[in-house]
Amino acid sequence: MRIVDGSVSSPRGFRAQGVACGLKKNGNPDLAVVACDVPAVAAGVFTRNLVKGHSLQRTMRLLPSASVRAVVVNSGNANACVGARGDADAEAMARFAADALGCAPSDVLTGSTGVIGLPLDLAKVEAGVREAAATLAAGAEAGHRAERAIMTTDLVPKECCLSFPLGGKDVLLAGMAKGSGMIHPDMATMIAVVTTDADVDPVFLRDALRTVADRTFNRTSVDGDTSVCDMAVALASGLAGNERVASSDAADGRAFLHALETVCTALSREIARDGEGATKLVEVRCEGAATPEDAYKVVLAVARSPLVKTALFGEDANWGRILTAAGYSGAAFDPARCDVYLGGLQVCAAGAALPFDEAEAKRILSEKEVAVTLRLGAGGHADRMWTCDFSYDYVRINGSYRS
Amino acid sequence: MRIVDGSVSSPRGFRAQGVACGLKKNGNPDLAVVACDVPAVAAGVFTRNLVKGHSLQRTMRLLPSASVRAVVVNSGNANACVGARGDADAEAMARFAADALGCAPSDVLTGSTGVIGLPLDLAKVEAGVREAAATLAAGAEAGHRAERAIMTTDLVPKECCLSFPLGGKDVLLAGMAKGSGMIHPDMATMIAVVTTDADVDPVFLRDALRTVADRTFNRTSVDGDTSVCDMAVALASGLAGNERVASSDAADGRAFLHALETVCTALSREIARDGEGATKLVEVRCEGAATPEDAYKVVLAVARSPLVKTALFGEDANWGRILTAAGYSGAAFDPARCDVYLGGLQVCAAGAALPFDEAEAKRILSEKEVAVTLRLGAGGHADRMWTCDFSYDYVRINGSYRS
Repeated sequence: MRIVDGSVSSPRGFRAQGVACGLKKNGNPDLAVVACDVPAVAAGVFTRNLVKGHSLQRTMRLLPSASVRAVVVNSGNANACVGARGDADAEAMARFAADALGCAPSDVLTGSTGVIGLPLDLAKVEAGVREAAATLAAGAEAGHRAERAIMTTDLVPKECCLSFPLGGKDVLLAGMAKGSGMIHPDMATMIAVVTTDADVDPVFLRDALRTVADRTFNRTSVDGDTSVCDMAVALASGLAGNERVASSDAADGRAFLHALETVCTALSREIARDGEGATKLVEVRCEGAATPEDAYKVVLAVARSPLVKTALFGEDANWGRILTAAGYSGAAFDPARCDVYLGGLQVCAAGAALPFDEAEAKRILSEKEVAVTLRLGAGGHADRMWTCDFSYDYVRINGSYRS
Repeated sequence: MRIVDGSVSSPRGFRAQGVACGLKKNGNPDLAVVACDVPAVAAGVFTRNLVKGHSLQRTMRLLPSASVRAVVVNSGNANACVGARGDADAEAMARFAADALGCAPSDVLTGSTGVIGLPLDLAKVEAGVREAAATLAAGAEAGHRAERAIMTTDLVPKECCLSFPLGGKDVLLAGMAKGSGMIHPDMATMIAVVTTDADVDPVFLRDALRTVADRTFNRTSVDGDTSVCDMAVALASGLAGNERVASSDAADGRAFLHALETVCTALSREIARDGEGATKLVEVRCEGAATPEDAYKVVLAVARSPLVKTALFGEDANWGRILTAAGYSGAAFDPARCDVYLGGLQVCAAGAALPFDEAEAKRILSEKEVAVTLRLGAGGHADRMWTCDFSYDYVRINGSYRS
């Protein structure tokens, strides 16, 4: 398995495009189409927020499917909380693409991200979809443009493409994602599109995506807020010619799962690293928990704590806040048995402060990637989550998001 | 019932003092003693964080009590996560006060707030307790000094004193509190000391404090983090001479509860208003919930959301974030029946955007007090919580708290 230069339009059968149709005030690209030349097997995971955008609700109704021909995603407008017209607008988005590609609207998935509560400008969307559909291209570059068009406050594109053998064939699996605020587990947490030319069973793909999302996208927190538009969809063209993958019990099933997790891990880490205002990627680890649920509660609480995250921004080795967040996480453990590490530096043993080298702690916290580890001493379960620090820029970005 | 100029040393029998003993690097007052000339009935509510400071654990073991003679609280150091010596240090703090006041150490309550993981400088504490105990005074001014000595990042003192009739007698009830970070419900959320000269039954006082804390201190969130040192203690000297209050079913019990809630509400609102970096007090209201739990979940999620709080700082009427936070709160409701108001201005009806006057919204959000209301349309239950906005200064304060 190796990472290659590629994008969602690299796997066989896929083409993509990203264009600017005027939904973003600043003129940046804001509409992406990812199309498949053949009916693709597709599955998705979705936000668990009660409030759901209309474009997303439409995609939820259509998946899983074995006949998806395209995904249309706009940025700059969430198509959410706009009343009955939201559903009609999502359907129109799909129809524009279906007309251009010569397929049924029900074979087109839709996604929207951006400001909530403003109606979509359908004339702009129509022009954008037509332009993108008319200029779809295979190869890495077109997918890179599609990625640019789904970004909102993201500063850098988030893409990963893997080449790996599957049932004797060379297979490509690629993903793109957008962050970078309203990121928190249990709701899929962003928009991601994964494409592959592997031949996979639809139910296997759905289960694989759920399993992997739980270990990757659902282990990523920027701010504890979850959006109404979060979804990850995976499309498989089957054109690699491998024998259809149908079970994670078989070797090819495990290989596919591993590749999918590798791509989604890379995207998740990039989402955290590029969190709004972030200056560093933080991996929060919990070991020695009595149950998997306890391990999850601890990493969730620490990764969400504004006090931990501002201390990391300030590169201040204020480890008491880390232990404190674990203490209110709801996990069962004895604080008097808990150890805390910043990177490889132990700062707390058995619940009590250790003398430590402040200069060394400062050096560790000034890195672009910081690991924070709690060992609870309560059992054998572990978990980890990716997050970022909390900076002035988070406040600046979110104090005037609509303007 | 009327608010009077007073402090915790105003009710009959109480004296107080606040001194600087060198625990705070900046030389500000950092040690407070509140003493009672007679054995006071006392009760407390405490953090539910698994990690608990040693001074707090000691007080938890002693309450409820009918023989409390003093409360000693230091700021600048949390006396938490320092191993076995933490318990001994808390006991020594109490002993210094007991020696000076001529009572048993078990009649002295202790509290500490500040940095976690550093051992207390006992020599400074001893000098501070002796100085404070030697200069205890009744009347408003001494209590004001005690309040100054328990403040950490607080910018303004938080005190309230009420005069009200109880069983034919004039009674005083006063409170002081410190915030202003690590503030979140279900853990008492700060340090508060309430004194009264009413004669009350210990069990009634404990139940009354729990009931009122749930409606006040536990409805206050600054940052979603909860400290290891949070506690509210109430001391009643009984010197007003009223017939002992023993039940909230009787008129005098209701009057006492009302006075206690009035004082704790004032303190809670001041804690939120003076939250770290706050520029405004925000009251989050939920109406029309199917259950009390749902109403609580909604106000908790909205009051905790960094995206809502940064938008309020930016005075940006981004109401979609408010509805979004309610959507992931865990409360059961139909977003399509939900209304949202900023102050008196409705911005969302039945889950969809309403055209609204942006200038009017800006004017409402630029006030020093802002109310945010969600009407779920799911039932008849309501709740409310106090919080503040999230500003650059929160990040600045918490990026370098230890230095």
